[in-house]
Amino acid sequence: MNIEVQLKVQDLLARYIQTIDDNRLEDWPDFFTDQCRYLVTTAENIEQGLPLGMIYATSRAMLRDRVRSLREANVYEAQRYRHVIGPPLIAPGEGAEVRARTNFIVVRIMHTGETLIFASGQYDDRIVVTEKGDARFAEKLVILDSRQIDTLLAIPL
Amino acid sequence: MNIEVQLKVQDLLARYIQTIDDNRLEDWPDFFTDQCRYLVTTAENIEQGLPLGMIYATSRAMLRDRVRSLREANVYEAQRYRHVIGPPLIAPGEGAEVRARTNFIVVRIMHTGETLIFASGQYDDRIVVTEKGDARFAEKLVILDSRQIDTLLAIPL
Amino acid sequence: MNIEVQLKVQDLLARYIQTIDDNRLEDWPDFFTDQCRYLVTTAENIEQGLPLGMIYATSRAMLRDRVRSLREANVYEAQRYRHVIGPPLIAPGEGAEVRARTNFIVVRIMHTGETLIFASGQYDDRIVVTEKGDARFAEKLVILDSRQIDTLLAIPL
Repeated sequence: MNIEVQLKVQDLLARYIQTIDDNRLEDWPDFFTDQCRYLVTTAENIEQGLPLGMIYATSRAMLRDRVRSLREANVYEAQRYRHVIGPPLIAPGEGAEVRARTNFIVVRIMHTGETLIFASGQYDDRIVVTEKGDARFAEKLVILDSRQIDTLLAIPL
Repeated sequence: MNIEVQLKVQDLLARYIQTIDDNRLEDWPDFFTDQCRYLVTTAENIEQGLPLGMIYATSRAMLRDRVRSLREANVYEAQRYRHVIGPPLIAPGEGAEVRARTNFIVVRIMHTGETLIFASGQYDDRIVVTEKGDARFAEKLVILDSRQIDTLLAIPL
Repeated sequence: MNIEVQLKVQDLLARYIQTIDDNRLEDWPDFFTDQCRYLVTTAENIEQGLPLGMIYATSRAMLRDRVRSLREANVYEAQRYRHVIGPPLIAPGEGAEVRARTNFIVVRIMHTGETLIFASGQYDDRIVVTEKGDARFAEKLVILDSRQIDTLLAIPL
């Protein structure tokens, strides 16, 4: 295991969730490569071999569109979210890629102050390190534990 | 603090919880040494000096038996579990052992999709690194915060 | 990114939350420099530019006073707390300081055994490493997500 890669991946993930929790959604697409794959799905779907998820994007441009829609729908502002992730589990990927699987729990803090568990699951990521040394997601699968996914589409995960 | 040891321990713990959350329970005993100590107890028991816990095993063979019982009881499949752990706190142990204490929270995702806090506590582990470079648990104390432990026996923790 | 600094900060944070969860509150002020800044506030306050928080201390002596008050009020003993933190996000600070931002969730375990989400938020820390190699907080902002803060004052966060 390469220590620098381990910490670079950990840093990427920490910055990623920070950006979402800070509600800086416009910066979110920059964590991905131009051509990328972003899929939000459930563990049940994965187990049943269903390739589709609730959200599917294949480019950074599509992610930008999604942020624009979310801002127009204006659903995000009413609550806060807080992600906590565990240590990423790193494995070599194809070529220069790294695969990282990371458990997460997200809580939602309502306007009233009440805090609820919003989502739990795993990130299954393929990460590339560019020549400049930046790490980005070439693929991010967000695999949710719960099948109650309707409310989960309010923010990037 | 040895950086390689720190990351090796972190990796061991990440793989350990991954295996449980993936419901690959048959692989779970392999995280332990042949002769080992696995104890699930409560913080209250520890404070009162009570040596007994709810689950106690002294070999990998006993852990395999336990998995077999759980599979026969068939209680696991109905729910999902998700562990999130913090960074392990490492200290030198006896001889070549490393001691690691790690906070955890486990949520349970019901078949309906509802997500509840299932358990919280601390792993207090003695870890050995074999000559081949594998890290394994020589001892794993699972110290639960809550005294409501009856339902906690459904899966390895 | 300096790997040693990253792990030193992670270790500091792990020991910090361990001390609180172990109810060793008398050791808690030792994580701070003599002259320090400890502020518990809400994300809402921060966004509105309000400098004040619910708890404010500017020296380790004030933190010791706070522990003494908490012990006299005797509110802590009735419950347990468990912090889980994610990987700290490190950035260079002024001079020899390091800035670290770290997501946290704290659950509270009631005397009955019931476990509730107690708090979530972010630590925004300025950390100094002394000549002896000890890392300490020169400043610790505890930024809570929820505005329901009355019950949050029972323990250090």
